[in-house]
Amino acid sequence: MKQTLSILMMALAVTSQAFGQTNSSALSAKSLAERLGYPRDAKLLIVNTDDLGMAHSVDAAAIKGLSTGLVTSGSIMVPCPWFPEIADYARQHPDADLGLHLTLTSEWVHYRWGPVLPRDKVPSLLDPTGYLYLTEDVAAAHIDAREAEAEIRAQIERARSFGIQPTHLDAHMGTLYQNKALFEALLRVSRENRLPIRVSKDWTSRIPFLQSILKPDDVLLDGFITIDSDVPPEKWVNFYTEALKKLQPGVTELGIHLAYDDEEMRNVSFNHPNWGAGWRQRDFDFFTSDTFRRLLQENNIKLITWRELAKLMAKPAN
Amino acid sequence: MKQTLSILMMALAVTSQAFGQTNSSALSAKSLAERLGYPRDAKLLIVNTDDLGMAHSVDAAAIKGLSTGLVTSGSIMVPCPWFPEIADYARQHPDADLGLHLTLTSEWVHYRWGPVLPRDKVPSLLDPTGYLYLTEDVAAAHIDAREAEAEIRAQIERARSFGIQPTHLDAHMGTLYQNKALFEALLRVSRENRLPIRVSKDWTSRIPFLQSILKPDDVLLDGFITIDSDVPPEKWVNFYTEALKKLQPGVTELGIHLAYDDEEMRNVSFNHPNWGAGWRQRDFDFFTSDTFRRLLQENNIKLITWRELAKLMAKPAN
Repeated sequence: MKQTLSILMMALAVTSQAFGQTNSSALSAKSLAERLGYPRDAKLLIVNTDDLGMAHSVDAAAIKGLSTGLVTSGSIMVPCPWFPEIADYARQHPDADLGLHLTLTSEWVHYRWGPVLPRDKVPSLLDPTGYLYLTEDVAAAHIDAREAEAEIRAQIERARSFGIQPTHLDAHMGTLYQNKALFEALLRVSRENRLPIRVSKDWTSRIPFLQSILKPDDVLLDGFITIDSDVPPEKWVNFYTEALKKLQPGVTELGIHLAYDDEEMRNVSFNHPNWGAGWRQRDFDFFTSDTFRRLLQENNIKLITWRELAKLMAKPAN
Repeated sequence: MKQTLSILMMALAVTSQAFGQTNSSALSAKSLAERLGYPRDAKLLIVNTDDLGMAHSVDAAAIKGLSTGLVTSGSIMVPCPWFPEIADYARQHPDADLGLHLTLTSEWVHYRWGPVLPRDKVPSLLDPTGYLYLTEDVAAAHIDAREAEAEIRAQIERARSFGIQPTHLDAHMGTLYQNKALFEALLRVSRENRLPIRVSKDWTSRIPFLQSILKPDDVLLDGFITIDSDVPPEKWVNFYTEALKKLQPGVTELGIHLAYDDEEMRNVSFNHPNWGAGWRQRDFDFFTSDTFRRLLQENNIKLITWRELAKLMAKPAN
């Protein structure tokens, strides 16, 4: 009897998967580029700068980058001290392509923040000093996914209460991608709010739980590029140049981190060269350069925004 | 009957005052300077820089000022983003004369903070955006003094949990001096923790409720000086020079605000020249100058610390 039930459940699972694949095939007949109204072989790029609101240096460099038109998008950290500054910018630039960089970590040892919800409502999000955890792995090991979901919902609500209409969601330091329960929370919030998230199709091979959670009508990037932490400063331009030359057709997001190498940012990141002040200045220099503009032209790369992807989610798939 | 009761109460009050004055006279036979072991005519000065932890620019300038020996003391804002930076300094400099700048306001529109206690525990402290109020008068008009007291107790506890042993207490933007209930809370916390507070004897004439609350054994400054907001930049040195030349015998606190006129501080205070970046740089320039050092010598002014005053409170008066 036990065995019969088990076989029945397997059969149901297979049937359900088959239906899933049918749906998927029906939709994937059109590529994401085509669904957006571009040719199938178009090379489409979103250039998103992360961490807006984290420091003034970040806000100032990001705003400058967005003003050039070469940086298409940004994502905002709601719990951070300079959030009101970037919220002010967002209100004055309603067409800017700004999403939320959902935040469950506070990574700089001398400059820190807590959650948006009252601390006693989300105790699992707090390290022993009462701030959010310093690193994504320790955070994910301690966080109750229900508290994480409540917190990211509160961050979205708070952003809206400040007049921000987010066009997309992603996750600071990838904390919400660290385990299945956290990613399910992110996906649930993404679907309910009809906001696309940073997930690339090829991640399903290296993040095992993605395949079983994603649905055919989820909007997935064709690729995601961010610079590796082992690229030495003198190879920075080379890394991005090669990445742009090799860019594949479809929709790719380039995740970058703009800020200035100034006193504030140097002291925020004083013990942390990765994603530190020099790193961010190099990103700023490259993504506001004529070199980058020329590479886009030479390689027939068209810049697009998250706002275009969000339109695909504006109504349910059926 | 009512009248009789009223007369009885007045009599009690007068008796109590008389006792108070007797105590006071017994103690005030010695001046504060004498209680500290200095001659009665000594000119003793505490130079306290406020707002530590508020911004990196503030921390860096304050630490530099303290290192010169010309700035004797500082007071720390526990709820602020850079609090961990100054806590780290405090742990490494256990002899530094650091107090707490108890914080119930968040005054810069682009850069803000909330309370230490969970927001749902202190709703009267929060403005409609969930941060502490922008100004001390609006704050005082909304704050429930019991919530204020809980919050300042939590700020003290949090400072201690970060390894800070505060030598004194004062109140950011004077919010805790705005009404009797708030000042009573400050005084209660000061007495229980045996930490002296920023109250000058002459304030009793302009803050009506002080006289009725202060007790004879409270440690009171003989004077408090801070620059007026109507002093133009070119008169800065002149203001402080005159103040030092006219300094009276006894213990005076000079309340100053050090920071650098840099990108961070200019953007923190972008719409607020009073206590803004330029103001703080002028304070830094004067209080780390040879001019200030020479004025101290020429006018026989001795620098002392809050730590010395705290010793007078180390045990009950009797």
